[in-house]
Parts: sequence; C-alpha cells; structure tokens
Amino acid sequence: MAGGGGTRLWPLSRGRRPKPFLPLLDGGRCLLEATVSRLVPMISGSDIFVVTHARHAPLVRELIPALPPSNVLGEPEGRNTAAAVALAAHAIDRPADEVMVVLWADQSIGDEAGLRAALAAAAERARSGDMVTLGVTPTGPETGYGYVIARGDAETHAGRETFRVARFEEKPTQERARELIADGTASWNAGIFVWRRDTLLEGLDRHIPDISRPIAAWAASQPGPVRAAAGADDRAAPGLAAVYATLRATAIDYALLEPASLEDRVAVVPMAVGWSDLGSWSALRDARRATSGASNVEQAGAGAAIIDIGSQDVYVQASGGRLVAVVGLRDVVVVDTEDALLVCSAEASQDVKRVVERLRDEGREDLL
Amino acid sequence: MAGGGGTRLWPLSRGRRPKPFLPLLDGGRCLLEATVSRLVPMISGSDIFVVTHARHAPLVRELIPALPPSNVLGEPEGRNTAAAVALAAHAIDRPADEVMVVLWADQSIGDEAGLRAALAAAAERARSGDMVTLGVTPTGPETGYGYVIARGDAETHAGRETFRVARFEEKPTQERARELIADGTASWNAGIFVWRRDTLLEGLDRHIPDISRPIAAWAASQPGPVRAAAGADDRAAPGLAAVYATLRATAIDYALLEPASLEDRVAVVPMAVGWSDLGSWSALRDARRATSGASNVEQAGAGAAIIDIGSQDVYVQASGGRLVAVVGLRDVVVVDTEDALLVCSAEASQDVKRVVERLRDEGREDLL
Repeated sequence: MAGGGGTRLWPLSRGRRPKPFLPLLDGGRCLLEATVSRLVPMISGSDIFVVTHARHAPLVRELIPALPPSNVLGEPEGRNTAAAVALAAHAIDRPADEVMVVLWADQSIGDEAGLRAALAAAAERARSGDMVTLGVTPTGPETGYGYVIARGDAETHAGRETFRVARFEEKPTQERARELIADGTASWNAGIFVWRRDTLLEGLDRHIPDISRPIAAWAASQPGPVRAAAGADDRAAPGLAAVYATLRATAIDYALLEPASLEDRVAVVPMAVGWSDLGSWSALRDARRATSGASNVEQAGAGAAIIDIGSQDVYVQASGGRLVAVVGLRDVVVVDTEDALLVCSAEASQDVKRVVERLRDEGREDLL
Repeated sequence: MAGGGGTRLWPLSRGRRPKPFLPLLDGGRCLLEATVSRLVPMISGSDIFVVTHARHAPLVRELIPALPPSNVLGEPEGRNTAAAVALAAHAIDRPADEVMVVLWADQSIGDEAGLRAALAAAAERARSGDMVTLGVTPTGPETGYGYVIARGDAETHAGRETFRVARFEEKPTQERARELIADGTASWNAGIFVWRRDTLLEGLDRHIPDISRPIAAWAASQPGPVRAAAGADDRAAPGLAAVYATLRATAIDYALLEPASLEDRVAVVPMAVGWSDLGSWSALRDARRATSGASNVEQAGAGAAIIDIGSQDVYVQASGGRLVAVVGLRDVVVVDTEDALLVCSAEASQDVKRVVERLRDEGREDLL
C-alpha cells in the first residue's frame, strides 16, 4: 500500500509526491524502494503488487523497474485501507489458497532479516486459516498507536512464538499504555497482515460486504489476468471510479481485524526489529540515526550543500538547491525545499500538520 | 562611517550589500537610514557626511536622498577607522573650530532623545579642546567590548555629568569586567566620538602622522569644497587610491584615543540609552524585542510569508521570497535568502562568522 498524505512530512511531502515516493533515505532512495528491496529475498518482484493512487502509477513504475507494470494497481481515489486491501484481494491472479502479505510502503525496519523471519512464521500460521498480524514489541508507552493484546500460550511457527489475539486497543492513555506493557501481552499494531487470500476474501465478505461485494462484481466483469492495473494514462482501470465513488472509507484494522479477533480468528507474531512508522520528522530522524549511529542526519540534494558548525541531534534535509548552514542547533529539524522551508523543534514535529492546515485555510494550494 | 563586513550577519550581509545597508528594521528600513534619522533633529542633513566604500556610494545616495550627493565620501578600499576618520577630517569644508561627531551607521539606540542629550553634553565639553567619547553604562560583564575608565570628579555640561578618562581597557576577562563594573567608573566604548575638527586634526598629526599627512597632502591638491566626494561612477576621487594603497590599517580607538587619554586629553559622557552594536543575529533580535516588546521578531520580505506555530524568542527573517514555517522553536535564528539559509541557536550566533570562513575556504565567493 503506497498511499496516504503524509502531511506531517511537509514541506517535502506534497500532493504530487507523497511520503512513499520521497527521497528520504541515504543516497536519495525512497521508502517504496526500501520496502520492496527488503521483501525480494523472500518474495520475487513478480509477486509484489503496489496499490496506489492511479496518478502515481507512472512514478511507481519508474522507481521500481523490477516490478511488472501490470502489478501496479491504480485506485481512482483514496478510500482508506479497507478498499485498498479489498481491491488487491479481488484483482490479483493468484491461487486463492496462497498466502498474501499486506504492508505499508512507508515504514522503516532496522532488522530486515528479522522482519522476514517474522513474516515466515506468520505465513506458516496463516496456512491454517488465521489472519495474522505482526506485533511490534513496545519500546515505550506510546499513545499514538493501536495495541494488539495476545492471550493464552505461545505456539511455535517457523521457530518463532505466535499467539492468539484477544483484542485490539486503539490509542490508549499513557497510564493504560503502561499497564498494557507491564502485563507483557501487548504489542503495537504495525499494520502488517498475513493471511491466505481465501481467508481474507471470506472475512471481507463477512465483515464489510458493502465494500467487498461491489469491488468483487466489478472485478468479475474485467478481463484478466491482473484486473485493476493502472492505465498508462494515469487513470484507474475502466469502471473502477464509479465503484469507488460509492465506497465507505474505513481502515482494514477497524473493519476486519477487530471484529475477527472477537471471533478468535486473529493471531499475532511479536517482533523486535527496529520498526518505525516514520510518522513525523523526528521519527524519521530517530530511525535513520539508529541505522547510521551518527548524532545528526544531514542530506543534501542536487545543487545543495550543508555546513554544520557544532549542531547535535539535528535532521537537515537540503532539497532546495541552496546552501543550508546550521550553527549550534540542538534537537531541531530543518527541511528546505524550493518554495517552502520548515524549521521545527524535534519534540514539536507532530505540529507540522498544523502548518498544512493553516496553508489550506489560507488557500495556498501551491504549497500543498 | 558606513563600512565593515558584518560577516556575523551572514547570509543577509554580503560584500555587495554589507550591514549598514541591510533592511533589518521594521518596514524594511536599513540601519544607515535609522542612524541619519536619529541625528536630524540635532544636525541638519546638509551637515551629515557618510564615509563608505566608493562602490556603495550610489546605494547611500539612493537610501538617503536628503543627503547632498557630495556629502558621500568614497574610500577606494577599507583601511579601518583611522584612515576613514582622517579622510573626513581633511576633506570636509567646515570651519576648523566647529564640533564634529563621528559615529557608526550600524548601531542601534533605543532612547534616541537620550543619545542626542549625551551628544549635546559631549559637544559642550569638546568646545574646550577635549576629545570626548560616549560611554555606554554596562548591563553585564561583556568580554567583547572595550571599556572606558573614568577618574576624578564629574563636571557638568549641558546638564549632564562628564568625566576625564583615565585609560581604556580592551576586551577584559569576565572576572576583570566584573571588577571594572563594581568599581563604578567603567563604561563600554561605543565608538561615538565628539571633538572640534582642529582638535582632531592636531591629534591625528601628533599620533598617526603616517596616516594623516598623506591624506592631508592629497586633500590640499584637490579642488573644494568637499574633496573626497565619491564619483558617480562608483569610484573614489582621483588620486585617492594611490594614497590609500600606502596606508596602515588601524582603528582610531587604538591609534588616537588611547594615547591621547594618557595625555589627559580625553573625556567621557556616560549614557544609558539602550545601545547595541548589533554585532550578531541575537544582538539584533534583542535590540528589536526591546523596541517592540514582543517575544519574537518575524520579518517577511517581498513574496515571502512566515507561519509560526508556537515558537518563542525567535528571530525569523524571510528574505528568500518563499514560505518559512517555524514550529515550536526556542531561542533560534532563521535567516532565509534566495541562495543561502542560516538556522542558528541564538547563543551560538557569534559562530556565524565560522560559516563565512568555511565558505571562503571552499571558494564559494558567490555566497560571500
């Protein structure tokens, strides 16, 4: 799934080029490239599908030339993750009893081999018909995430522990988060799901038929093999826009995983692999520092340069083609682009979305 | 005197447009304009002369249209303040026994009427043949300034106390600065001097004849009335470049005032008028906050805009024609220009000159 606005990564993230396609990693690599390259030791490129807004399909094909062009599934508009997952489930031409992994294109993983080991365990458990989610071992009482609560004894799959999921808890208070962590049964919901495609299709039909059935009917009317491939003209496949216009926008977590967990259909594979959702500039800084071991993250694009005199714990992205000098800063994020500049204290980096709101209020569509 | 590099105000201050000419004040006013306008209630525009690099003469004439064009004295190159003061002393066409004020075009004064009252007292004392300096009542044990040490009883001139100067002390340690301030006789040397022109000419001839006499000889060979007026072609008056090429570069404080103080020729008028030398971005911020009473100083140039979400004690200058967003910053300076950006902690703002040194080392003359 390569969608979403990523407004907290403004001013680099814009409508034309949202978060998965931004050159946020060393050497100017984007998050989508990194996501694909960490999967290919396990899943061949011809078996990787990207669901994205149809207008970004040419960008995906350019960035990931190893992907067959028809594996880029184009949505006519964003309708949250339930619709995106349902579209993929109905559109791809693979045997229904094969295991399918659903994940985001814009997350960061420090231990990539660890992720693949967790996916292998999840795939083994999924073969018996469970919906499996990967759970991130919490590193602190975060209040912004969903928590997955395990119950009962561990089973072993591909050499790792897996658990039945009792329930989900969304965005707890800090006190509640501390309790959940102390209890030892909680992990963060990373939004990485593993299931047989027939398990998924059955779950979609049972819990969100209003989304799944119109997409299924549309897919049945299309010629194969991959039915939702985006056109070369930046448009979704014919007829899909009319279907999407009627769909409810809801998240697959709420709409499918939560009710399925109450029916004992969901399992979790805990993992500690240096996961980050890169949900803000400071999260991006922390993830990149964990990889590099350096105090600062400083990245200059074409025509730009950075001079740093004595700064610490800074993230500096010079993408405006100009010189950026930082002097004596502590815990500050600087993101320079051609037409807009952000300077933000790391601890306030969630408030970047308020800048975007202000720009929208002021009609500055040119900067969004 | 409108000279000097002002490298600590990079990236706004450049070789083409140094500190006195920068739009650093409310409404885009520059420091030279502010300096002239605080003098005109006391000194008419026709009696104000500006000594500057000849290439900046057109800029001075454009910024201060009230000044007679021939009152802009053009130096062929910078040779520090002794040469600049000697040039003015020999070149201007005023009776030799009239009182002359020498001051910088790039300082800030909160209480302008207080400055004029101090100048009036200094002028009265200067009529008897003293060289008079204005002393700034210290607000803390600053180590970057020169200190003027008074001795003996106060005299009264124009209703204010004036003192004989015992000596100068340059850039003391912090401990020594505390002692000087505790003693009650010290003030900061602001570099504002008042003297009769004949007193000055005599002192120059006595203490720095190697600088004064070549300029005197050159001036005697020139047609009047103002002999060093910069040409309309950005060049100094004919023949002056050859004279300047031979001159020693030294400061008038060291070369004239210090030795004259040892001969009991120097007096001081203490003043507390909200003086700042605007020697760094944080000094500029503090001076402008003292005037406005606001926590932040935020100034956007043509085509630019500033969005601030919850910042405190910041100085933001948006002169790059772009949007600048600042989020949750504390005590940070942001100066955006078309080709270079500075982000600096306020307390490290003296280190901006190290950025300029680095650029010089790297051959980035385009940014200097």
